[in-house]
Amino acid sequence: MVRKIDYPLNKIRRFLEPGPVVLVSARDRGSDNIMTMGWHMMLGFSPALFACYIWDGDHSFEMLRNSRECVINLPTVDMIEQVVGIGNSSGADIDKFETFGLSPVPATLVAAPMIAECFANFECRLHDDSLIDRYGLFVWEVVKAHVAGGSQTPETMHYLGEGAFMVSGRTISRRSAFKPQNL
Amino acid sequence: MVRKIDYPLNKIRRFLEPGPVVLVSARDRGSDNIMTMGWHMMLGFSPALFACYIWDGDHSFEMLRNSRECVINLPTVDMIEQVVGIGNSSGADIDKFETFGLSPVPATLVAAPMIAECFANFECRLHDDSLIDRYGLFVWEVVKAHVAGGSQTPETMHYLGEGAFMVSGRTISRRSAFKPQNL
Repeated sequence: MVRKIDYPLNKIRRFLEPGPVVLVSARDRGSDNIMTMGWHMMLGFSPALFACYIWDGDHSFEMLRNSRECVINLPTVDMIEQVVGIGNSSGADIDKFETFGLSPVPATLVAAPMIAECFANFECRLHDDSLIDRYGLFVWEVVKAHVAGGSQTPETMHYLGEGAFMVSGRTISRRSAFKPQNL
Repeated sequence: MVRKIDYPLNKIRRFLEPGPVVLVSARDRGSDNIMTMGWHMMLGFSPALFACYIWDGDHSFEMLRNSRECVINLPTVDMIEQVVGIGNSSGADIDKFETFGLSPVPATLVAAPMIAECFANFECRLHDDSLIDRYGLFVWEVVKAHVAGGSQTPETMHYLGEGAFMVSGRTISRRSAFKPQNL
């Protein structure tokens, strides 16, 4: 279990902008599900907007569109078997929390459960549903962020296609070369 | 100079989905510019769609909206000083190709120049301009891809905010755990 602290919403780019694979958890009409997702981007600081593509064939698609809520969970590389298993099974067939040994914990502002084992959890409400039909694009507002205390450099996974992942490596700072307004 | 080969458009996710910082090159009304960009996502395989956020205060914003073309260039970590310099200066003040010692080379299908020193270059045409006013979101169709021959694991940079970058690390395959239709 990862102990977490509240994290400022205008700084969550640190975890989402690098492009990690995330787990999306949903609750709709009494059932929970988790999906693996890699097509996403930051879209605003304040409000904290986050856009993601979801295929309309995914079991979570209608759950997310109907409930208008989710949690974006950030897994670390020690969870790779679960990330791959979740992405290669369907919530129509199995309970993914149970099958993959993950712990649902209540979120604060949304009904969708957070995944306790993940490094960070971002509670989201659907901000704009108007791009779902055209592009499968869900625009979320992140309304609360929970991040593990301590190190801020989780080992994340970044999908390359064809079953391969890049694992995050070292951190380099060039802070002194930035204009103050760009930091 | 990096020698490149044509790359299949339906496989460019390998380079864009992991979430690297990219350089966007533009040509409009006889002038060229380059910007550093980190908010982007894949949005389709075929056609190969790629969405990105561009701030309307950026010098490139009107160039891209007006010319309706760009090249998305993938820099490697040895180019970090150029990436940071480009992101912290304006094309209104300087010629970025000249200032940062980068070589413009003609693209095949678009007028915008490719950056020779980058690992890959993706020629793009504007697919949808209807989300620019609301979200600063440009939806591009990638119409041609040029990728360095040899290794397919460039050392890319992933922005963390506050002047810091994560550099891509090792690659892990879990191909055997994927369903064939998910590869």
